[in-house]
Amino acid sequence: MSGLKKDILAIAKGAKEASLIMGQIHSSVKDKALLAMADGLERNKARILSANKKDILAAKNKKLKASFIERLTLNDKRIKAMADSLRQVAAIRDPIGEIIKIWTRPNGLWIGKLRVPLGVVGVIYESRPNVTADCIGLCLKSGNSAILRGGSEAINSNISIYAVLNEAARRSGIPEGAINLIRTTDRKAVHILLTLSDYVDLIIPRGGESLIKEVAGRSRIPVLKHYKGVCHIYVDEDADLNMAERVCFNAKVQRPSVCNAMETLLVSRDVAARFLPSMIKRFKEAGVEIRGCPVTRKIVRDIKAATEKDWSTEYLDLILSVKVVKDLDEAVEHINRYSTKLSDAIVTENYHASVEFLRRVDSAAVYVNASTRFTDGGEFGFGAEIGISTDKFHARGPVGAEELTSYKYIVFGSGQIRE
Amino acid sequence: MSGLKKDILAIAKGAKEASLIMGQIHSSVKDKALLAMADGLERNKARILSANKKDILAAKNKKLKASFIERLTLNDKRIKAMADSLRQVAAIRDPIGEIIKIWTRPNGLWIGKLRVPLGVVGVIYESRPNVTADCIGLCLKSGNSAILRGGSEAINSNISIYAVLNEAARRSGIPEGAINLIRTTDRKAVHILLTLSDYVDLIIPRGGESLIKEVAGRSRIPVLKHYKGVCHIYVDEDADLNMAERVCFNAKVQRPSVCNAMETLLVSRDVAARFLPSMIKRFKEAGVEIRGCPVTRKIVRDIKAATEKDWSTEYLDLILSVKVVKDLDEAVEHINRYSTKLSDAIVTENYHASVEFLRRVDSAAVYVNASTRFTDGGEFGFGAEIGISTDKFHARGPVGAEELTSYKYIVFGSGQIRE
Repeated sequence: MSGLKKDILAIAKGAKEASLIMGQIHSSVKDKALLAMADGLERNKARILSANKKDILAAKNKKLKASFIERLTLNDKRIKAMADSLRQVAAIRDPIGEIIKIWTRPNGLWIGKLRVPLGVVGVIYESRPNVTADCIGLCLKSGNSAILRGGSEAINSNISIYAVLNEAARRSGIPEGAINLIRTTDRKAVHILLTLSDYVDLIIPRGGESLIKEVAGRSRIPVLKHYKGVCHIYVDEDADLNMAERVCFNAKVQRPSVCNAMETLLVSRDVAARFLPSMIKRFKEAGVEIRGCPVTRKIVRDIKAATEKDWSTEYLDLILSVKVVKDLDEAVEHINRYSTKLSDAIVTENYHASVEFLRRVDSAAVYVNASTRFTDGGEFGFGAEIGISTDKFHARGPVGAEELTSYKYIVFGSGQIRE
Repeated sequence: MSGLKKDILAIAKGAKEASLIMGQIHSSVKDKALLAMADGLERNKARILSANKKDILAAKNKKLKASFIERLTLNDKRIKAMADSLRQVAAIRDPIGEIIKIWTRPNGLWIGKLRVPLGVVGVIYESRPNVTADCIGLCLKSGNSAILRGGSEAINSNISIYAVLNEAARRSGIPEGAINLIRTTDRKAVHILLTLSDYVDLIIPRGGESLIKEVAGRSRIPVLKHYKGVCHIYVDEDADLNMAERVCFNAKVQRPSVCNAMETLLVSRDVAARFLPSMIKRFKEAGVEIRGCPVTRKIVRDIKAATEKDWSTEYLDLILSVKVVKDLDEAVEHINRYSTKLSDAIVTENYHASVEFLRRVDSAAVYVNASTRFTDGGEFGFGAEIGISTDKFHARGPVGAEELTSYKYIVFGSGQIRE
């Protein structure tokens, strides 16, 4: 066995062992640890920022993109945000130990479903160092051991954040082995980790599509995946058009680079002529490039034609495709065909249309009269998120502490035997 | 593309399309279909039994084992049991459309978690033809499309059961493509199915370990696995020893060939000398071979010594390993080390011991004062089961209609935008 394999195996085995203790730790201990970790981040700000500086310098020397360096960079505000997120996770209800339901069988058995941790969660992520704190916080809250593997470009930042958090956790009574960071930047470490299905219960890749595809392709452990976000808003013929303009503008412009931003606007043909001119004018003023269907281009001149490819493109940029549709049916059909099933919305004052849209759109989060941008663990009230699942299996949408759990059946008998 | 690949792809695409309709069908339609399917089985008994005869004859010609032929064989009673199981599935509450929880955010958004079907469920199973009816029933109840692939030895039985069920379902308003049987016995059909992750959402292998390992190894689709059942009962020092004898006897002897039968008996050393002599006598009278630890063999003479291998062996037979332990701690430790985490029990009248056992034993179903044999979808009140999961991911323990579901978030706004 190679030295690397031995190291990764030792981490995984230690994490599994610690997970048996983690599952039994009281909420008060976990929450105290989370608060100590938040304080630790703020107290050790200088140390973390100096480690981060090394990573930034190396990234600049490697001539990495400005947007990459922006994501990598920590500052006072971002460290405070990391600490606040840990405090929010401390404040949410502990999912572990919840009796989800309990019922009585005709033979008198009580059968209950008790929420328990998954065990060991592996997170493989790219350059954002704040992911380190979010993932450790959510794993701890949900009673799981965590094994983190961050991007090599953030290695100094991650080691420094990890050291601060692990120290605070250990001092608060969290067992050794519960929180782990893989320090080597050798890619083989990830390949080894993905085979250790006896010790690791879940793998969460966070990052670009190629990382996710590689992890999902190699893993012998269940993976929670998050692919692209091609999100839609449908402006119904019964929409409040002022509200529609506000919601659509927010969904496209407030932060275009994220997965829950709108990429395609669908408009009922009954209101297209009234709605589109001022809406598109406002988008253009904000620097948004519009790519329209033929009907859109008759209503508003001088815009690019959308091609078939546009309907399935995640721009992550100030670009928007616009299509005029006949009615709700055509909107739902378009969405169920082209959406990546992450976040889609309708704007309408019509009760029937709202219910039909909620029922029939097959996406992780379906909205009436709100921006698609709310699909986020923090916005949903989970304190933070470890990722957003576009799978239907196990967890869908924002993944918080509750989604990092399993259950066991507890059965209370009085001597029942099976006939 | 090969003809076979074209065929399997067409089935999978058709199933996906039908699943969009299936997710919207009202409970009353699904339950009417389930009852019509049950009646259909009973009305077409002769036709099914005659197809089954062909399979039995072929199996006998191939000189397959008696136990294999026993599992393959249908009769009046077994057809009635299949029909009754469909009626029980009709009687349970529809999981689809349930709002699991709903909450209000500080900005006024209502966020609800709505239960929805997974989509398309593939089941790959071996020779028991009753699995065909159970799986179709549970998939239909949970609004999923089903693709079944049974063992080649039961092909005539399966085609005949499928034809009866599909006909009854179609006449009751279930869409074409919702229920599918792969008729070819070519193994490549399974290999192709396991790659179609764009159309199939879950694969459930039911059968021996080699089938499960092969499916899990090849599948690009999430798999719910059920490996071995090494189940324990711990007789605590505060047990009612009469109850303990009844429960242990039932767990070992009532049906030794199944996964939830007891394989290892653990006894507190404080009661071993009082409990074991009469318990082992009763087991021996029932033909059970005992393999004991050194202490057990001091208490009861003339029994075989258990080896290290015995503690992790699933006998599926009238064999039982017995170990005397110091206390609850040692029992829990032994179970968490050797159990396959399916079904483990304690017999005790001590409150503290019962709670500690329920908390600390890391198994899918943990019992106080009841036989491990109750780990079963029917016994849990699910109407039937499509399998028993020894995974922690997505579903654990008996898998009924509710476990074949996912959820989506439905969000009710009044124009909220993200700041």
